[in-house]
Parts: sequence; C-alpha cells; structure tokens
Amino acid sequence: VASALAPLSEHTPFPRAALHGSAPRPGARVALVLSGCGVYDGTEIHEASAILVHLSRGGAEVQIFAPDIPQMHVIDHTKGQPSESETRNVLTESARIARGKIAALAALSAANHDAAIFPGGFGAAKNLSTFAVDGKDCKVNKDVERVLKEFHSAGKPIGLCCIAPVLAAKVLKGIEVTVGHEQEEGGKWPYAGTAEAIKALGAKHCVKGVAEAHVDKKNKVVTTPAFMCETEIHHIHDGIGAMVLKVLELARK
Amino acid sequence: VASALAPLSEHTPFPRAALHGSAPRPGARVALVLSGCGVYDGTEIHEASAILVHLSRGGAEVQIFAPDIPQMHVIDHTKGQPSESETRNVLTESARIARGKIAALAALSAANHDAAIFPGGFGAAKNLSTFAVDGKDCKVNKDVERVLKEFHSAGKPIGLCCIAPVLAAKVLKGIEVTVGHEQEEGGKWPYAGTAEAIKALGAKHCVKGVAEAHVDKKNKVVTTPAFMCETEIHHIHDGIGAMVLKVLELARK
Repeated sequence: VASALAPLSEHTPFPRAALHGSAPRPGARVALVLSGCGVYDGTEIHEASAILVHLSRGGAEVQIFAPDIPQMHVIDHTKGQPSESETRNVLTESARIARGKIAALAALSAANHDAAIFPGGFGAAKNLSTFAVDGKDCKVNKDVERVLKEFHSAGKPIGLCCIAPVLAAKVLKGIEVTVGHEQEEGGKWPYAGTAEAIKALGAKHCVKGVAEAHVDKKNKVVTTPAFMCETEIHHIHDGIGAMVLKVLELARK
Repeated sequence: VASALAPLSEHTPFPRAALHGSAPRPGARVALVLSGCGVYDGTEIHEASAILVHLSRGGAEVQIFAPDIPQMHVIDHTKGQPSESETRNVLTESARIARGKIAALAALSAANHDAAIFPGGFGAAKNLSTFAVDGKDCKVNKDVERVLKEFHSAGKPIGLCCIAPVLAAKVLKGIEVTVGHEQEEGGKWPYAGTAEAIKALGAKHCVKGVAEAHVDKKNKVVTTPAFMCETEIHHIHDGIGAMVLKVLELARK
C-alpha cells in the first residue's frame, strides 16, 4: 500500500491537501480591537467572546489590540452610574477579555493582518471615539482612524457590530452599515435613533435583523446589530457568527 | 372551523402543547454564580459567556449572582501581577458580565431555581474559596457552600467548569468530577496537578477531553474541563455546551 502511494507523494508536495477540500490551510490573520471590558464603559463582553469563538472556528489567527489610554468613565455596572473616584486604562481592562495576550493599538499595522474586527459596547463610543458625547460631530481616536483607513485602502475587510459601525461611518466616507432597525418597536430596538446619526455621518444605513450581517462589498465593510437589539443572547451570538463568516470570506479573496 | 375546535379547547387546557412536541414549555430556571470579571482574579469571561449562550439556546431563564465581598486580588492582566493599590468588589465586577442584571449571592435560594452553574477562572479559587492559597485544605465561601448543599439536597443539578469543580469536591463528599487530563502532555493540560487535589478532597476524578462533560448521575453534578485545557476557544465553547445540555436534561427530570 505504501509503495502504491509513493508516486503521488513524489509529484505533489501536499497530496492530502490536494485530495481533501477540508485539509488545513493557513488561517486568516485577524486583528481584534477592544475598548475596555464591560458594556457601559468598555467592550461588550459577549460580543467580543462571540467574535473570538467564531474566528477560532473559522481557523483564523487572532491578535488583540486596544489603545493605551485612560477610560472616559468607570461605570459601576450594578448601578449604571459613574464611579467618580476611579480611573482605569483601556488596554489594561481589555486584557481581561484577551486573557493577557494583547498589544497597544499603536502597534497595529494593516500590513500584518488580513482583516480587522471591532466589537461594540459603549467603549467604542466613549474610548475609541467621542460619539457618546458628540454624536455626529464626534472625533475618532487617531489610531482607530489610522487603522480603519489602512485596512480600507489596502482592500482588507473590516467587521464591526453594535455601536462600533459609527467609527467606520465617520472615518470612511459613503459606506453602507447596519445598526439594526430604524424604529424602537416597543423596546426591541432601544437605540434605533443611532440609524439617523449614521446617515448624518454621511453613511448609508441598511436595515437588518439581529441574526443578519450587512456586507458593503465595494468597501469590504461587514456589520451586524448585536446588542443594539434587545433579544436572547444566542441570537446575538449567531448574528456575530454571520458577520465573522463574511469577514473571513472577504479576507480570502 | 372555530366551533369544530371548541370541544377540544374545552377539554384540554393546552391543546397546542398536547399536539405539538415542539410547543413552548416553561424554561428551566438556572442560577449562574460569578466570582468577578477576568480569568486571573475573577470569572473566566469566555466560560461565563458560553454558559449564557448555551442556556439561552436551551430556553432557560437565567438569574445571575455573585458574593458581595472584596476580591482577593486585582490582577493587571497585561502583566499577570497584582495591582497593590487597588481593591474591587466581586459583585460589582461580576455585573460587567451580567450587563447589570445581578443580585447578591446571599439572596440565592435553591427553592427558586431548577439548577445552578459555576464557571471557572481564578475567582473560583480566590474569591469563592481559598483553593488558590490553601489547596486541599481550602475553605469555601459560606454562601457558596450553602448554595451547593441546597441544590444537592434538593436533587437539583449543579454544573461547574474549569477549576470550579474543586468547590463541589470540597463541599459535597464523594462526588465524581472532571478537571480534564491528569498529565500535562507537553503543556496541553498546564493545571493537570489539580486532579490530585480533587482526589485529596475526597472526590473521584474522571478523565475527560475538553469537548466532553462528565455526569455524576447520582449526585447530579456535571463538569467539563474548559480552560484547564490549552486549546482553541471554540472547543471550550463546545465543551461548555455539552455541560449545559446535560444540566438542562437533569433539570427536566
């Protein structure tokens, strides 16, 4: 049997890869950009975790980054109120989600990655930009702006969810994104007004459900509503799965 | 048509449930017990998130609890070192994972729930017990001990993962649990020595892979190795799925 396979092995360097569609291939190198640890002052934890699970399942190599800057707020999540006496650092708190394996956002270069993904949480609107305070007149952190422009101009896909699409809408002109539905619908879409801000930033808003991702093929920007929708967490997990899948598909092209 | 259905409606209180196996039924009421927010000083974030996703998919009603006590440590997760000047509260930090919907562990009574689940992370060994310092001679937080004994004596299932099985091994005598493999295997099981501690606590250790759950049917204790294994995060997510499924099955009986 061994000798019968010998000719094939000699002529094809990776015979198993040639014969099996499921053979391993190098995974996409994906940069994940965090903004803290906790929905009200940092990255939404379950969005980040879902992104990591789906990237892992898709065979991606992930590196995690966050800006080395103070958080705008430290929110006591039992009360929803700022803790006046406390300060925390975005990189240090993001390291909790990253299990310690994290680098400063200043070190992220699109040259070293095939795609970038930004989860939501108020950290995107408080620490990565001033959207929480300034709305459509927001400023975006300079490294976040640089990273978004680098991936976009290199034709590499960018995934964003929840409130994070405002970052891309501000920096990349004329893109299409979704932040979910445009009406509150009795509390199912409590942040529905964000769609108006997306339009005011010069982007096109596309209505999508929580289990869907919107793909702007021209700009390679992929978005999903995630926790913009008040629903069961497994639907959010699945919508993020749809977003990650599309990002990995675009990263292969 | 309405009058033709009338006799059925009169005589069976839930005709749709009687006719359709997939008809909705009340979900299991599950208590999730956290120990902070971050692998090195609290709850392992991705374990907690996976538990919530799988419970949601299984139709469970979840309430989240944590003890209202100071953390043993605040660890800077970028360095793996304690931050000497800082103190944080276990309940307040756990609220980050719970998105604010959390209650003090003192308020948790087994009478109000069908099952309890404890994720891992060093918080289980630092804040819910003194296992990180005292090993087999550890003390368990009195509310954690009370809750474990209440669910056990009521015949209600308890799920635990990663290092959390030490809590049940200490409090419930003679149970079977897994913390994974019993040898390091070149770094794949970096905490393999924990199996010896499980035995020293008087429990039986059962070797399981990361995608598996061990079920102690007699005691209704379900365990899975989770981050005791050094592997891709989607395998941990799936192993936790196996654990949650078994807990929900036992909760229905």
